[in-house]
Amino acid sequence: MKIREFRKIALKYKTVFFDAYGVLKNYNGHIPGVEDTLKFLTDNGIDFYILTNDASRSPEQLADKYIRGGIAQITPDKIISSGMLAREYLQYKIKPGSTVAYLGTDNSAHYIESAGLETLSIYDLSLDNCEHISAVVFLDDEGFDWNHDINKVINLLRLTNVPVIIANTDIAYPVSKHQISVAIGGIADMIEEIVGKTFIRFGKPDAQMFMFAYETVQANRNIKKNEILMVGDTLYTDIIGGNKFGLDTALVLSGTTLPHMAKIKIESSGIIPNYVCESVLT
Amino acid sequence: MKIREFRKIALKYKTVFFDAYGVLKNYNGHIPGVEDTLKFLTDNGIDFYILTNDASRSPEQLADKYIRGGIAQITPDKIISSGMLAREYLQYKIKPGSTVAYLGTDNSAHYIESAGLETLSIYDLSLDNCEHISAVVFLDDEGFDWNHDINKVINLLRLTNVPVIIANTDIAYPVSKHQISVAIGGIADMIEEIVGKTFIRFGKPDAQMFMFAYETVQANRNIKKNEILMVGDTLYTDIIGGNKFGLDTALVLSGTTLPHMAKIKIESSGIIPNYVCESVLT
Amino acid sequence: MKIREFRKIALKYKTVFFDAYGVLKNYNGHIPGVEDTLKFLTDNGIDFYILTNDASRSPEQLADKYIRGGIAQITPDKIISSGMLAREYLQYKIKPGSTVAYLGTDNSAHYIESAGLETLSIYDLSLDNCEHISAVVFLDDEGFDWNHDINKVINLLRLTNVPVIIANTDIAYPVSKHQISVAIGGIADMIEEIVGKTFIRFGKPDAQMFMFAYETVQANRNIKKNEILMVGDTLYTDIIGGNKFGLDTALVLSGTTLPHMAKIKIESSGIIPNYVCESVLT
Amino acid sequence: MKIREFRKIALKYKTVFFDAYGVLKNYNGHIPGVEDTLKFLTDNGIDFYILTNDASRSPEQLADKYIRGGIAQITPDKIISSGMLAREYLQYKIKPGSTVAYLGTDNSAHYIESAGLETLSIYDLSLDNCEHISAVVFLDDEGFDWNHDINKVINLLRLTNVPVIIANTDIAYPVSKHQISVAIGGIADMIEEIVGKTFIRFGKPDAQMFMFAYETVQANRNIKKNEILMVGDTLYTDIIGGNKFGLDTALVLSGTTLPHMAKIKIESSGIIPNYVCESVLT
Repeated sequence: MKIREFRKIALKYKTVFFDAYGVLKNYNGHIPGVEDTLKFLTDNGIDFYILTNDASRSPEQLADKYIRGGIAQITPDKIISSGMLAREYLQYKIKPGSTVAYLGTDNSAHYIESAGLETLSIYDLSLDNCEHISAVVFLDDEGFDWNHDINKVINLLRLTNVPVIIANTDIAYPVSKHQISVAIGGIADMIEEIVGKTFIRFGKPDAQMFMFAYETVQANRNIKKNEILMVGDTLYTDIIGGNKFGLDTALVLSGTTLPHMAKIKIESSGIIPNYVCESVLT
Repeated sequence: MKIREFRKIALKYKTVFFDAYGVLKNYNGHIPGVEDTLKFLTDNGIDFYILTNDASRSPEQLADKYIRGGIAQITPDKIISSGMLAREYLQYKIKPGSTVAYLGTDNSAHYIESAGLETLSIYDLSLDNCEHISAVVFLDDEGFDWNHDINKVINLLRLTNVPVIIANTDIAYPVSKHQISVAIGGIADMIEEIVGKTFIRFGKPDAQMFMFAYETVQANRNIKKNEILMVGDTLYTDIIGGNKFGLDTALVLSGTTLPHMAKIKIESSGIIPNYVCESVLT
Repeated sequence: MKIREFRKIALKYKTVFFDAYGVLKNYNGHIPGVEDTLKFLTDNGIDFYILTNDASRSPEQLADKYIRGGIAQITPDKIISSGMLAREYLQYKIKPGSTVAYLGTDNSAHYIESAGLETLSIYDLSLDNCEHISAVVFLDDEGFDWNHDINKVINLLRLTNVPVIIANTDIAYPVSKHQISVAIGGIADMIEEIVGKTFIRFGKPDAQMFMFAYETVQANRNIKKNEILMVGDTLYTDIIGGNKFGLDTALVLSGTTLPHMAKIKIESSGIIPNYVCESVLT
Repeated sequence: MKIREFRKIALKYKTVFFDAYGVLKNYNGHIPGVEDTLKFLTDNGIDFYILTNDASRSPEQLADKYIRGGIAQITPDKIISSGMLAREYLQYKIKPGSTVAYLGTDNSAHYIESAGLETLSIYDLSLDNCEHISAVVFLDDEGFDWNHDINKVINLLRLTNVPVIIANTDIAYPVSKHQISVAIGGIADMIEEIVGKTFIRFGKPDAQMFMFAYETVQANRNIKKNEILMVGDTLYTDIIGGNKFGLDTALVLSGTTLPHMAKIKIESSGIIPNYVCESVLT
């Protein structure tokens, strides 16, 4: 397994898709030096976008964190979040003005409101008065009481038959150097098993996420799939998803795939990136 | 599908194994008339035992609820709970005097204490001081803070490599006529998926539960498998488990398997009880 | 559950996507009267396409069967098969001129050849000489010896680390009024479990199939997602896939979803079509 | 991870349960020196039994292979095969004289015949005349035409509702130093997914296999669980199964668990043997 320099590889492409966590940032905030890599890309006429399984905050809020962390180049238009796909679904499939119940924070409810819909937190919902709910969206693992509200949403889904949308497929996420937390996708898997219904999921590795990003790029610049490089730290989301969509892929070893395990993981999974790089800093 | 009278069928056997919920009791407490059926069995020299996926209370506490509800015949020695199998595992596999961490109430911790082990609630455990933990047991969905303690046990299992025992495989249980709650087995499935380890599960339909009951019966009375009838309301636990162990089985329609769905469920699942009865009252 | 007339509904859209089996054809060939419905659509300026999980034949061969069956309107350009997505993947990700091994008939290998690649049937492959294989594609359940070649492909995947592409996700398909056969997607699931690698799958309900069709439509006519109706007989592929992609959906009861089970299946699955119609003939 | 000498450990126990493949034998036949270890056990008053997921041959035939290979100590009474559990199931649950259909060789059908039942190979069965079938048993991956007979048994299970018994849960098995073959358990998983019914499986790691062996031992010698050592090469069957049943366990590194991967596999799986030994020869 040959380790390549990221910048040399990037020069072959017109657009780079970055995963966020483990690639551009970690538990401490953004990885020092990332701003130089982004400047290098821009100086060489290479566009970039961030594809993130996240519905906890709006693109504006997500970008704001980068900007306040010192990476001025990450503006809201650079961010493609799985929450944006959930919003697109709601816009196409739910009648404007309807009420949509959700698990998550007020911030995460932005994705429902901006689709022109009324929001109702599961926390505030009463099971005695739930006939007017048009859909249920799982947005974030915070903003509700797990015990009380997980049971409430299960009983809601037994009382009414409405679409259930999972705006982030991840089952866990890192909260510090050594600790992780259950993500809303993990809670959704448990609930789906219990209620026996089929939920609709958005986020990498699903093709719809890559397609959404691809269409966003197309709106600005006419580009082909083989002119895009997907960069990520996780074989099972970033790399397999990019490969399947027809993009070239680069695995970086600055996140979940540890350097000494990369070769064995690629061989045992059969998920083969085009390139392997130490990080995006090289 | 022929509906049979329960008492007529029971007369063919020397021992009856009952599931509890949906058979002897429901959301309102025990089903009126059950005490007469149990008396009928005793009068005819037929033993009975209750096989229940429950580790929330000791057999003494479980029996006490029946007795206070008016069914004096259900003494602690009649109860075989999945918690008893977890206790047996701990007795065989964990060194006496070791400390075992658990998710559950103080009542549920009885199954650890009575195995001669020290208990430590996940609620009280500190991740900075967890090297002395010898096993983790999932006992009950109550007695802890779901958000905080589910994440804590996940991080505990990433820090230490110890056996994880699930003392109740059920993923949900009824709490009222129309509502259910996540059971500890459902929480365990989510955590197992996230940490990627293999947990040890006790409870129907697993053969070990039936074997444990069978050995309990043998200690009192020499009996063969084909002299035992397993009675339950759920095809996927009571009936398939009883069938696989070699027992005759009776499905009752007083619980999760609704009368108008019984035929279609038997045919679509391929899980075939020897008999179908309205309830144990007939 | 209201049963609607298909033609009245179709008039609200500019384009219709049809599933093939259970909608336009069945075990006897095409369903009599389908040609009138297609004519009705064309007369009213409504385009149509067929989205089919099939990689056994080229679009030309698939269309030819319709035409010889009396439906002259189904020309090759109307057909979107999952094999076409596998071909697109190969074009993007496999170096031109490479050799790709496959399970399937000679007809199915068309999807590899037309991507500018050399083909090698697993039947003809020798495990002693397999280093030159660049990918393995599962195309069809016919054209090979199941016992010998399923074991051969398993051992090939243990010897070499190459991408594995499943060109049809279906696990079974009807072969006569009452009989079904294992489809290549079912064989692929078994092999994936045994080798422990992650395969790349194409076909409904995956979003990439709908996106491919959508892009095909766009090339001819500027159209929005909400101007397209997806019509299918299977909730778990056609309807959930269409819904997730943002299309309106119509379930027809002429195939796998039997009329007396439709309501219960929609409620138990939570997969909710916009419309339910007896068939496309109404 | 400390590597222990097998013989020293064995001396602490009264009975040893051995897995067969990877422990006592491999692709070349039995492992040279095994006969000395078995003699050592016998000389020290330690009983031994072989627990094997195998229904392809009777215990007599399995023992005969060992004896002809030079290990005279492995007599039929030393062998506990998963086929014997399937036979026990049939004896308890299927009416004597009934006809049972099977996938497998004539040799494997022994397990049905010796239960006092008529056998009918799926190969010879006609779907037009299948009402008299009382059960279907999956015994071996040989003795039938995979393509034709896998499809036939699927359609049989759609026509009739009878119990389906899988007499070997393994999904694959080694056929030479570097090659494996699909086992009947792998074929059964595929068919179960397609027909949507719940099959009954026998074999490690299921508790019923260990219980059957335990009862066999008890018939000869009064012994407790903690006087038995389970020895195997596979964490996911031998070790987790032994642990769950309450036995002490020893992992040997002469089979599927390679020496350089043992530590990482134990830590990532959470399946913890009491001992790790190079092989049973030490």
